[in-house]
Amino acid sequence: MSDHPNLYAGPPTRTDAEIFETLLTRPGIRVERIVSTGQASPPGFWYDQDGDEWVAVLKGSAELRFADEPAPRRLAEGDHLLIPAQCRHRVERTANPTIWLAVHLAPR
Amino acid sequence: MSDHPNLYAGPPTRTDAEIFETLLTRPGIRVERIVSTGQASPPGFWYDQDGDEWVAVLKGSAELRFADEPAPRRLAEGDHLLIPAQCRHRVERTANPTIWLAVHLAPR
Repeated sequence: MSDHPNLYAGPPTRTDAEIFETLLTRPGIRVERIVSTGQASPPGFWYDQDGDEWVAVLKGSAELRFADEPAPRRLAEGDHLLIPAQCRHRVERTANPTIWLAVHLAPR
Repeated sequence: MSDHPNLYAGPPTRTDAEIFETLLTRPGIRVERIVSTGQASPPGFWYDQDGDEWVAVLKGSAELRFADEPAPRRLAEGDHLLIPAQCRHRVERTANPTIWLAVHLAPR
């Protein structure tokens, strides 16, 4: 089937760090599973990526903050959005656990 | 957020046909959400695709049959697998509802 049998299998308890697992890699694309267990981005840290990223919350919930927006966006289970390249953002909050699916795209 | 607000929003009752919704398109990749409500591939029909497809069952369950395997594979919630190009396959069964996420990749 796969070396990664189930998207929803996760750590039974809180881990210190988020878990990143690459599910698929092809030229220009990488599909990644992320398990958050309550983490947030460090204070003052902003992601600033060269390529677009499509991200979905499969389980749990999170708050995603964009630098050019006054308030974080709340992402519930099943919510998804495209984070355009060079759009600075950070994770303000995650539920324990939160399972993300991210599709990282090469710069256009 | 998105024109497609939630992966898990679906038809409240069975629909006659599966629902296909493209969530993201980029050169070489298309991310698609599929909602099945009990459908199976027509008798004798086999998918035979030019590119690889990564597929995940986000909700529900399904049975996926490969032409070169004697029995269908049962996919539970969270299961995912890569369907290689030119690997003939068909959907033998879906729960109502089953929500799939498919990543279609261009031929290599």
